[in-house]
Amino acid sequence: MKILIINGPNLNLLGVRDPEIYGRETFEEFFLELQAEYPTVTLHYFQSNHEGDLIDKLHEAGFGYDGIVLNAGAYTHTSIALADAIGGIRTPVVEVHISNVHAREPFRHTSFLAAKCAGSIVGLGLKGYELAIEYFLSL
Amino acid sequence: MKILIINGPNLNLLGVRDPEIYGRETFEEFFLELQAEYPTVTLHYFQSNHEGDLIDKLHEAGFGYDGIVLNAGAYTHTSIALADAIGGIRTPVVEVHISNVHAREPFRHTSFLAAKCAGSIVGLGLKGYELAIEYFLSL
Amino acid sequence: MKILIINGPNLNLLGVRDPEIYGRETFEEFFLELQAEYPTVTLHYFQSNHEGDLIDKLHEAGFGYDGIVLNAGAYTHTSIALADAIGGIRTPVVEVHISNVHAREPFRHTSFLAAKCAGSIVGLGLKGYELAIEYFLSL
Amino acid sequence: MKILIINGPNLNLLGVRDPEIYGRETFEEFFLELQAEYPTVTLHYFQSNHEGDLIDKLHEAGFGYDGIVLNAGAYTHTSIALADAIGGIRTPVVEVHISNVHAREPFRHTSFLAAKCAGSIVGLGLKGYELAIEYFLSL
Amino acid sequence: MKILIINGPNLNLLGVRDPEIYGRETFEEFFLELQAEYPTVTLHYFQSNHEGDLIDKLHEAGFGYDGIVLNAGAYTHTSIALADAIGGIRTPVVEVHISNVHAREPFRHTSFLAAKCAGSIVGLGLKGYELAIEYFLSL
Amino acid sequence: MKILIINGPNLNLLGVRDPEIYGRETFEEFFLELQAEYPTVTLHYFQSNHEGDLIDKLHEAGFGYDGIVLNAGAYTHTSIALADAIGGIRTPVVEVHISNVHAREPFRHTSFLAAKCAGSIVGLGLKGYELAIEYFLSL
Amino acid sequence: MKILIINGPNLNLLGVRDPEIYGRETFEEFFLELQAEYPTVTLHYFQSNHEGDLIDKLHEAGFGYDGIVLNAGAYTHTSIALADAIGGIRTPVVEVHISNVHAREPFRHTSFLAAKCAGSIVGLGLKGYELAIEYFLSL
Amino acid sequence: MKILIINGPNLNLLGVRDPEIYGRETFEEFFLELQAEYPTVTLHYFQSNHEGDLIDKLHEAGFGYDGIVLNAGAYTHTSIALADAIGGIRTPVVEVHISNVHAREPFRHTSFLAAKCAGSIVGLGLKGYELAIEYFLSL
Amino acid sequence: MKILIINGPNLNLLGVRDPEIYGRETFEEFFLELQAEYPTVTLHYFQSNHEGDLIDKLHEAGFGYDGIVLNAGAYTHTSIALADAIGGIRTPVVEVHISNVHAREPFRHTSFLAAKCAGSIVGLGLKGYELAIEYFLSL
Amino acid sequence: MKILIINGPNLNLLGVRDPEIYGRETFEEFFLELQAEYPTVTLHYFQSNHEGDLIDKLHEAGFGYDGIVLNAGAYTHTSIALADAIGGIRTPVVEVHISNVHAREPFRHTSFLAAKCAGSIVGLGLKGYELAIEYFLSL
Amino acid sequence: MKILIINGPNLNLLGVRDPEIYGRETFEEFFLELQAEYPTVTLHYFQSNHEGDLIDKLHEAGFGYDGIVLNAGAYTHTSIALADAIGGIRTPVVEVHISNVHAREPFRHTSFLAAKCAGSIVGLGLKGYELAIEYFLSL
Amino acid sequence: MKILIINGPNLNLLGVRDPEIYGRETFEEFFLELQAEYPTVTLHYFQSNHEGDLIDKLHEAGFGYDGIVLNAGAYTHTSIALADAIGGIRTPVVEVHISNVHAREPFRHTSFLAAKCAGSIVGLGLKGYELAIEYFLSL
Repeated sequence: MKILIINGPNLNLLGVRDPEIYGRETFEEFFLELQAEYPTVTLHYFQSNHEGDLIDKLHEAGFGYDGIVLNAGAYTHTSIALADAIGGIRTPVVEVHISNVHAREPFRHTSFLAAKCAGSIVGLGLKGYELAIEYFLSL
Repeated sequence: MKILIINGPNLNLLGVRDPEIYGRETFEEFFLELQAEYPTVTLHYFQSNHEGDLIDKLHEAGFGYDGIVLNAGAYTHTSIALADAIGGIRTPVVEVHISNVHAREPFRHTSFLAAKCAGSIVGLGLKGYELAIEYFLSL
Repeated sequence: MKILIINGPNLNLLGVRDPEIYGRETFEEFFLELQAEYPTVTLHYFQSNHEGDLIDKLHEAGFGYDGIVLNAGAYTHTSIALADAIGGIRTPVVEVHISNVHAREPFRHTSFLAAKCAGSIVGLGLKGYELAIEYFLSL
Repeated sequence: MKILIINGPNLNLLGVRDPEIYGRETFEEFFLELQAEYPTVTLHYFQSNHEGDLIDKLHEAGFGYDGIVLNAGAYTHTSIALADAIGGIRTPVVEVHISNVHAREPFRHTSFLAAKCAGSIVGLGLKGYELAIEYFLSL
Repeated sequence: MKILIINGPNLNLLGVRDPEIYGRETFEEFFLELQAEYPTVTLHYFQSNHEGDLIDKLHEAGFGYDGIVLNAGAYTHTSIALADAIGGIRTPVVEVHISNVHAREPFRHTSFLAAKCAGSIVGLGLKGYELAIEYFLSL
Repeated sequence: MKILIINGPNLNLLGVRDPEIYGRETFEEFFLELQAEYPTVTLHYFQSNHEGDLIDKLHEAGFGYDGIVLNAGAYTHTSIALADAIGGIRTPVVEVHISNVHAREPFRHTSFLAAKCAGSIVGLGLKGYELAIEYFLSL
Repeated sequence: MKILIINGPNLNLLGVRDPEIYGRETFEEFFLELQAEYPTVTLHYFQSNHEGDLIDKLHEAGFGYDGIVLNAGAYTHTSIALADAIGGIRTPVVEVHISNVHAREPFRHTSFLAAKCAGSIVGLGLKGYELAIEYFLSL
Repeated sequence: MKILIINGPNLNLLGVRDPEIYGRETFEEFFLELQAEYPTVTLHYFQSNHEGDLIDKLHEAGFGYDGIVLNAGAYTHTSIALADAIGGIRTPVVEVHISNVHAREPFRHTSFLAAKCAGSIVGLGLKGYELAIEYFLSL
Repeated sequence: MKILIINGPNLNLLGVRDPEIYGRETFEEFFLELQAEYPTVTLHYFQSNHEGDLIDKLHEAGFGYDGIVLNAGAYTHTSIALADAIGGIRTPVVEVHISNVHAREPFRHTSFLAAKCAGSIVGLGLKGYELAIEYFLSL
Repeated sequence: MKILIINGPNLNLLGVRDPEIYGRETFEEFFLELQAEYPTVTLHYFQSNHEGDLIDKLHEAGFGYDGIVLNAGAYTHTSIALADAIGGIRTPVVEVHISNVHAREPFRHTSFLAAKCAGSIVGLGLKGYELAIEYFLSL
Repeated sequence: MKILIINGPNLNLLGVRDPEIYGRETFEEFFLELQAEYPTVTLHYFQSNHEGDLIDKLHEAGFGYDGIVLNAGAYTHTSIALADAIGGIRTPVVEVHISNVHAREPFRHTSFLAAKCAGSIVGLGLKGYELAIEYFLSL
Repeated sequence: MKILIINGPNLNLLGVRDPEIYGRETFEEFFLELQAEYPTVTLHYFQSNHEGDLIDKLHEAGFGYDGIVLNAGAYTHTSIALADAIGGIRTPVVEVHISNVHAREPFRHTSFLAAKCAGSIVGLGLKGYELAIEYFLSL
């Protein structure tokens, strides 16, 4: 089984921004733990702040991987192009958000991507990435 | 650890309605499997088509249980009273939807409950209930 | 042929409220006349002010009756749960409103139920219930 | 008793368009059956694709007939002028739609005419015209 | 003089939820004080989380009592059925809200009930119930 | 000086509909009085319930007359085609409404025509037609 | 006959602002011409940029004059208080706008005042004031 | 205890406008009765049709009085400046409306002031002013 | 191959209105050039300012022609009846607009017809009609 | 060079309201510092809570001064009359807001004035007034 | 003559995605055919999933080419930056969409680009690119 | 003191596009003048048409610089990702727009960035960049 995790804009700031609040763990460190937890799964990780890069990566992985876990950050709420990319590939995508976007500003309550994904996991912290992997393993 | 699963309106039709499509398994049968999977967790199940019953149950369980998994069905989109009940109790609630509500009618894209829950798991089928339990176990 | 008439909230006040305007006939009395008019049809009647009761009744009757005549009163405009119940059963439902809801307040101009019913009869008074039965007889 | 049936735009295509789906019966043929069914009623029929013709006809019939059955087709959703014509005549009008307009595109869910009519019968097929006549006979 | 106080959903949590903030006094205890303050008034109290129960109670009391003080909680913003119940009875109703709903979420700024009530008292704490009684005494 | 008065849909019912309220004077009779009042002005009158007829008439008169007084009735609120016709001719147009449309239903508060006319006179009864003529005489 | 003309905010700039475009005639000069034209009418004039002054003046004149011609300028689109003042007095008010407000910015297309006035004259220049007087003379 | 009552635009017409409906009592007369009823309270009264005067008065009284009862009339629905004035002073303000604004035009259903006041009393007639004073006395 | 060009309201003014801007060529003259350019195609032309005429023509041609080029003018933005006519016939329709409607008033940015047509060509001048014919020839 | 600073409603509370937060410096004191900083500029200051006073002042200064710095407070969001005054004068106006209005309530995100001003400086504290003067000096 | 074709996000999937439906021809293959068809035209092709790349390319080509054919895919509906790029260059741009976007989801019915382009060709398949070239050749 | 100026999409066209209107000065030339004016400040400049590049640059500079002057061009109105980047860094950001965006198309009146910036300077031309630097120097 081959699973790709894609993180979108500003998620590279995890562990850097306000470490006293969000902790000092970067996503790269968390990703190492994930790999250790699922030794039989081929897990890859990609992050970019560029909408175009995320689309390119979805195209590249979307016909070979078994599952994609996507946290598109703020592009979730503004990018129809990303939604089209998800709709255009064969690999199923699960949308993850670390924080509860429904409890934040109104413009974070709508998602262009959700309708094109298999489903979404919202507000359950970094645990959400793990649950998304569990979902792919259960298929 | 004590976890309550609450299902709202029309979810009692699972296994009865269009069995050739949705399968013949009722939620009660699925619940037995869940209990078998988590023998060390005290798991309870409640279903009602009455908004008031769901509120009463949340009040009753909301100061003693460790977690509540709530699929409020269509009340998700119309009930501020349920949202207030979730906001008024101490036990954290995770919202689950079996189907991907974001890929259905527009009036299913808004949720009064989401902002008051810890988070939500949408579109991942019955697996979503299990992932919600996993989340509570990880706390 | 087996037909159920369901009345929703506040329709129990017919004949009680402002009898000098609406007349002194209650729906129960009108129902006796209907039964007399259709002796070969098994006609039942149910009224409740509880959304959950209406859903329970639709589930109970929705796999055995030949037709359901539903006047959901104000729940017509607010209940997605009732719409789901209509969509989840096998028996066809015809929506009836005694008054012309389109000539009243704007919030009565929208209906969550109409799209899930076979059709609707609006503004033709108690005669609407009879026409709905005629429709079922013509199938 | 004198009743006029008025059909608006595109209803002349009944029986012509997709006959394998909608059947080969034209409205004119259905009208002959209606006349046979109600031999004691003076029934007339008028169809036009012109908004102005429909208004002229309503003015012409609206002070002499006992009832008008109106299916204004798409003008239902766009014509305030037709609504004014209904409001300006003495004969009561019942609005009929063959299909369930509430289950179609959103712009078919609003009606300028409904508020000015006695009532409406929606989604019950050609049977709706007959039920409208029954309503006038019961007055 | 006979006055009924009706409290809607979640108001049974008063005194239970966050007592260090809202105090430890339940509404039942406050009600005893109210009765002591108005010994010549017949005061009754009813609470339910069920929309249908609130409607049933309004029907039951609405033709015999001299005044009803109603805090419908979150149903204020979503229930046309409750508004119809208030409009269908003879007893005047005064709407009370303990907190200032206009300073909270936008969906709490609209009320289906206000237009059907005699008036409303908002944001003045438990004192609001007393002022509503004073209003009825002044009629 | 050559002035044309154009009346749109349903204005032919003046004097016919509810004569005890609106009086028994038809617009044709009022027009004779207008002609008598302005003997040196060439005054013509045209009425139609057909949007297309009104457009045809505007085209026909719009390059030869000195002024057009237009009461487009309900087409005021729905016809962009009429607005384009006014914008496409050389003769200035003054919009007249007999009743105060701003005190009626909300859909009568918007006008596609007003922006293309020289100006409008609203709510001043039949006197409005006379004031429009006075305006053209003053140019 | 006693008629008051009231001009609202910024109308004191007439004749001062861009005289090469709007001309050098101030409203005061135009008013002298109006008085000369109607020697038998008692004509008064009042201008203020203060919403409160306009309300005070309407109250003061609104029980003694036979007609008020009101150009409330931009307050037309924002002042419910002025609308209430018009609705609270006995003297009928005719609204006048010099320019065609419907051909300007969208926020000038709505009027709080129009529904409370007898009618309005829009876009016919200073001639509009004269036509409003003619209207009062015709009553 | 020192309490100021402030009335906004058009409330000076009380007792003058339609006395056969609203009665012949002016607010000044009612105020004398209030003073007689609360001899130990220093009660002052201020009325103005000017938004700026109301703001000036709130500033002047807002750091010395114990309570302000404010009926801002139509400014309630349009004045953010008044809301800022209430938010900028120390004295708590209770909003009062004599009529039930929620049962009137839609533009009277929203209030810029409500969120900045302690609370509001709506639709209970002149009694509302007295209840507001009772509220301040109970603090 | 048989192709019909239909022009809607106000397009008869081409060549007449502002010839110094739009040129002196009428659509009839342009049509002669088109016929000369496509000698092997049977080309017909129809223009009307009447919505009903356009619908009648679509019905008449819509089961025999190979293609229809439709410039419905302002009816594009207001006529659901025309959209239904296009949807009810067998001949494919291509929508053409001479000017770029998206660069004009907002009410010209929406089209009821576009969804029912094969496609649309906007803003490319009279050349658009020719390109539509090229499209039909390429099928 | 002659520059006028105009402050609108509630800005007179600077230094008085919550001095521990906003500081004890009044705008008058800040204005003295500004004058000291720009000894060669004729600087005047005007404050009023009255919309009409602000309009009067703009008219008075708007044909003689070289620049106007305007902080219209809450009138920014509600006053078309002020916008018209800015548009009607010759002196350019720069809009200043002390706090970042875009980070506050949604009704503070829109400005009627901005489109009529040369530009605006928002959220940079009292420094904004100085920057506006710098702008005028650079012209 | 020098013409550039620019394709935006996800159009690189043509021929790859669902080949049994969309065919196995890639845009590159189609482009070779186009070049063969127009041997005298210098035709270039560029595709990118990056909004910034599309803007860079428009800037680069926009002062030297004779025409640009742009299918911006989903950026059509979300990118004001692309619209500004089109508005900022000298070369005219024709917008092309392969499918009929008006018959798809509502968020595909609006275009930021259309108003800045010369025109658009929608729903006519790959033929649309050819027609756009024909348009440039006809200039 | 270290300050970075970031310009977004299409601002590289300054001096190239319509030089007879906007002048022939490029931003790079203006930047040299700025550096000359503030010799003691370390000033850097970055421009990109790529949203992702702007985010990357904000991350890179946002923990080391003393101030960032950002003109995000059209991304101002569409990019939540940029807003998140501003909110995620430590360096304060001042938003600058050369033209008065509030006097242009409605979609330029809203800003996702403004709420996350310290403040904004709009419509004051290139001078706005200098005023932003002055602001940072005054901190």
